[in-house]
Amino acid sequence: MSGLKQSLRGKIPPFIVMEVMRAAALREYEDKAVYHLEVGQPGTGAPRGVITAAKEALDSNRIGYTVALGVPELREAIAKHYSTVYGVEVPADNVVATTGSSAGFLLSFLACFDPGDRVALAAPGYPCYRHILNVLGVEPVSLETGPAERYQPTPALLEKALQDGPIHGLIVASPSNPSGTMLGDEEMKALADFCRDHGIRIISDEIYQGISYGKPTRSMLSFEPECLVINSFSKYFSMTGWRLGWMVVPDGLMRSVESLAQNLFISPPTLSQVAAVAAFDCEEELQANVANYARSREMLLNELPGMGFDRLAPSDGAFYVYADVANLTNDSQTFCRRILNETGVAVTPGLDFDSGRGHHTMRFSFAGSPDEIHGAIKALKGWHGLR
Amino acid sequence: MSGLKQSLRGKIPPFIVMEVMRAAALREYEDKAVYHLEVGQPGTGAPRGVITAAKEALDSNRIGYTVALGVPELREAIAKHYSTVYGVEVPADNVVATTGSSAGFLLSFLACFDPGDRVALAAPGYPCYRHILNVLGVEPVSLETGPAERYQPTPALLEKALQDGPIHGLIVASPSNPSGTMLGDEEMKALADFCRDHGIRIISDEIYQGISYGKPTRSMLSFEPECLVINSFSKYFSMTGWRLGWMVVPDGLMRSVESLAQNLFISPPTLSQVAAVAAFDCEEELQANVANYARSREMLLNELPGMGFDRLAPSDGAFYVYADVANLTNDSQTFCRRILNETGVAVTPGLDFDSGRGHHTMRFSFAGSPDEIHGAIKALKGWHGLR
Repeated sequence: MSGLKQSLRGKIPPFIVMEVMRAAALREYEDKAVYHLEVGQPGTGAPRGVITAAKEALDSNRIGYTVALGVPELREAIAKHYSTVYGVEVPADNVVATTGSSAGFLLSFLACFDPGDRVALAAPGYPCYRHILNVLGVEPVSLETGPAERYQPTPALLEKALQDGPIHGLIVASPSNPSGTMLGDEEMKALADFCRDHGIRIISDEIYQGISYGKPTRSMLSFEPECLVINSFSKYFSMTGWRLGWMVVPDGLMRSVESLAQNLFISPPTLSQVAAVAAFDCEEELQANVANYARSREMLLNELPGMGFDRLAPSDGAFYVYADVANLTNDSQTFCRRILNETGVAVTPGLDFDSGRGHHTMRFSFAGSPDEIHGAIKALKGWHGLR
Repeated sequence: MSGLKQSLRGKIPPFIVMEVMRAAALREYEDKAVYHLEVGQPGTGAPRGVITAAKEALDSNRIGYTVALGVPELREAIAKHYSTVYGVEVPADNVVATTGSSAGFLLSFLACFDPGDRVALAAPGYPCYRHILNVLGVEPVSLETGPAERYQPTPALLEKALQDGPIHGLIVASPSNPSGTMLGDEEMKALADFCRDHGIRIISDEIYQGISYGKPTRSMLSFEPECLVINSFSKYFSMTGWRLGWMVVPDGLMRSVESLAQNLFISPPTLSQVAAVAAFDCEEELQANVANYARSREMLLNELPGMGFDRLAPSDGAFYVYADVANLTNDSQTFCRRILNETGVAVTPGLDFDSGRGHHTMRFSFAGSPDEIHGAIKALKGWHGLR
């Protein structure tokens, strides 16, 4: 150890799913079979139209920096998507292309919150919300949700949290990771109204928009025009490694988000921006992906209960099944490690999503191909650990 | 205005060069000629080998997430580059692929410094250093440099700054943006020794490595193994829009940098990572680019003094000429705007780099093609504003 400065805030927990990914990769490196149910990584690549557009751009485009907010063609295509698919009018001027939803979180949190501010979010939830807030000196306020709230925040939970101090923001995610549950229109409206009345800024993570199995997904923009929306080409558009996402930002925050984006990111990846414009013309291929997710989901929901995974959150959307496994283990991390080592099925322990109760929960991702899910089910069925 | 929360820290200054870019783009949109001397954007695209590798990857690679630290092939290629070109042994385990040098700054500053810490850096300097530090609650401590210090920090300047309070870090950049000056071996060693003795962590921005016109560039790693190095494929490798860079991180900070990268970025752009491996085999093409920069530099250094730009920083490396224009204006922002409007030459006012003295300095970038520089010189020569 040198005597040189290391920060305290840098000592954040790892993103456990990425640790599972690493263990799984190591197993593959040893030529052992792995079924990837650990990560929200579509088994498909980008749609064909995007690949073609990328190749064309490689021939014709210098692939230099773009303006920080993204190329106009992309911002306009995204704005049009809201109008066509969600019936919400979003001016292209309020659309900001970002380096994945990750950059969207950083930009939103920095533009909205100062150190010491308090931001509410559901537990279980996407772990990086909490970790990024902590790194930025913002206090995450956990709203403990369960089957009664369908794993979503409610005005009642916010009301209760307000008794412990002011709340400056609320993160919502519908469909949610890890639970897969969605907010209905009435629930969205109730949250929007409550937050408006209490001066709480809503950050709406809509990264799983377009992936649902009953009702269609909605945008919080339909209920609260002053919210910040974060979205991405990673999930529905199947473009994880392209690191491209977007935000919809209300007028009053545009200048701040633009300056932050210029200084912190310069611009999102240019080739991804140019190619992603074509993604909006690939509806058929993308809907076929969703149909595959639906098949995989069906298999899991049919088979998991018989194996003992019988306390499942309602998987309304996204590509996750979240299981309460208190009947099977009180140490989900060891349990998931055993499953990987003894069956080759990579799954994520709940600790990533809920530090308080995750020791008895776990998440199955069915983003891979139906074959992968089928193989995983077969491997799990034969596992002595579930006898 | 809604009553909803906006942050104070989000109200940072824009990155002025990007504002100039926007004004220049607007002029181009009106079909008027623009000579781009405003931005450090190579006039060339990625080397041919990289384009070929990218196309192959589009056919064969799913382009999914990678591990947060980057694909092993890339980390190994970068490590080998240090050994071959700079004679420094860097284990691939200490190389971290990043989403441009921008991500490298964010990760370095977060891993090293807590709110309230003080980090020294030269003025003039890259404006995003200061802005990012401010956003993260770290206090930038300006070391005012000029021709006497060749625009570089010195132990004497640090000694003086220490009288006002503790210094936890020092950012060095050799070659520097905007001045283009380089630290010699002795100066690097002196800074390394001073910082080691005073517990100051060095962050060495080596993004212009490989681009110099006299002595070859060096790495701070040759003098201080505990420094953090930040580098990028944007400049020497001519891959700005690919948003790919790297860090070299000492052992003691690796775990922190990895967790931060997992949570804040997930992973750098996958296609860029895979394709960039080929960049190290494109030496001939990249050296031809440097030869072009040398020609452009020669033209500017020959012609600028006769026009009145006669107080130039020594342009040892990078692709910048930094001019003290106190004899021409005391309002560089208006002056640069006039130059753009009246000649089509886009240049950057010094305020971006030095808030205290930048009102009488400006930066010429010669990263564009020699033809572009030639055209700019011709346009400037005919300008009545210099009479």
